[in-house]
Amino acid sequence: MEIKYCNQCGGSVSLATPIGDSHPRHICVQCGYVHYQNPKVVTGCLVYQGDKVLLCKRAIEPRLGMWTVPAGFMENGESTRDAAKRETMEESGAIVAMQDLFLVANLPHANQVYMLYLAELKDTGPHGPETSEVTLFGKDDLPWEEVGFYTVKYGLMRFFEDLDKGKFSLHEIDF
Amino acid sequence: MEIKYCNQCGGSVSLATPIGDSHPRHICVQCGYVHYQNPKVVTGCLVYQGDKVLLCKRAIEPRLGMWTVPAGFMENGESTRDAAKRETMEESGAIVAMQDLFLVANLPHANQVYMLYLAELKDTGPHGPETSEVTLFGKDDLPWEEVGFYTVKYGLMRFFEDLDKGKFSLHEIDF
Repeated sequence: MEIKYCNQCGGSVSLATPIGDSHPRHICVQCGYVHYQNPKVVTGCLVYQGDKVLLCKRAIEPRLGMWTVPAGFMENGESTRDAAKRETMEESGAIVAMQDLFLVANLPHANQVYMLYLAELKDTGPHGPETSEVTLFGKDDLPWEEVGFYTVKYGLMRFFEDLDKGKFSLHEIDF
Repeated sequence: MEIKYCNQCGGSVSLATPIGDSHPRHICVQCGYVHYQNPKVVTGCLVYQGDKVLLCKRAIEPRLGMWTVPAGFMENGESTRDAAKRETMEESGAIVAMQDLFLVANLPHANQVYMLYLAELKDTGPHGPETSEVTLFGKDDLPWEEVGFYTVKYGLMRFFEDLDKGKFSLHEIDF
């Protein structure tokens, strides 16, 4: 969203590059406050049990009815790992043992950085309202055409490849 | 900074948890716009040549006069890797060959995620005004007590340890 008013004094803003800065910012014409806008981190888990991964069917937009891994925007005061675990609990109800960072996917056009952790499924519980269904899928019964986000599809493909190799490693991609 | 006014209509905001949300947000009392605040990504490079690392002496606050690696806030429209390379060029003038992600350090109290990449020094050039001096240091002549940020000190310690082992790997820490 474009910034139209100063969040400190309510004055109007204009777009200009501050002295010593390399990017234009929304600067308040009244109090001079500079409004920075930066990418957001989306963090979540690739939860697995044996050779199956946990997917959530989305009960909300965007991509209502499509499948995805539990993930969402990291909040202030959290670490990436804590945020991934919280999102997993909220969206899938899964209790997991957190493992290594598995995917860093940049979406510069959307100003987002996806960070997905591997996590082993330990227990299940009730999921939140963002999800209508939680299921474990193997490579062959996974509804690939109904995966809601290409970052997630990319992560799932790398997961099953690494599973075949017997070794998980960190994957990085810029979309 | 606390949000006091709506950036969409200039109205007042109040702190409340939207329906279906788990965190309180600054919501405009006039137009209902919800202002989300999320952690920022700081990205940069651990630039090395042989057994030496490149450090910049800071010409600006915070930590004026202290040493650090080239790093700064990721901008909208960038990938983490591109941002790391840009910050490295701006702050140190170094032309580098980007390598693997080396450190993910979370600072939940500061709402920041540090992501440092390994990068091999290929050439040098003029540095920007944030820096007063750029120097290559080995483990034994590095001014450890004058390193300005503990995330950076942690990364440098892991770098020299991995260098001794002959193998670099990804390090993660929450401060």
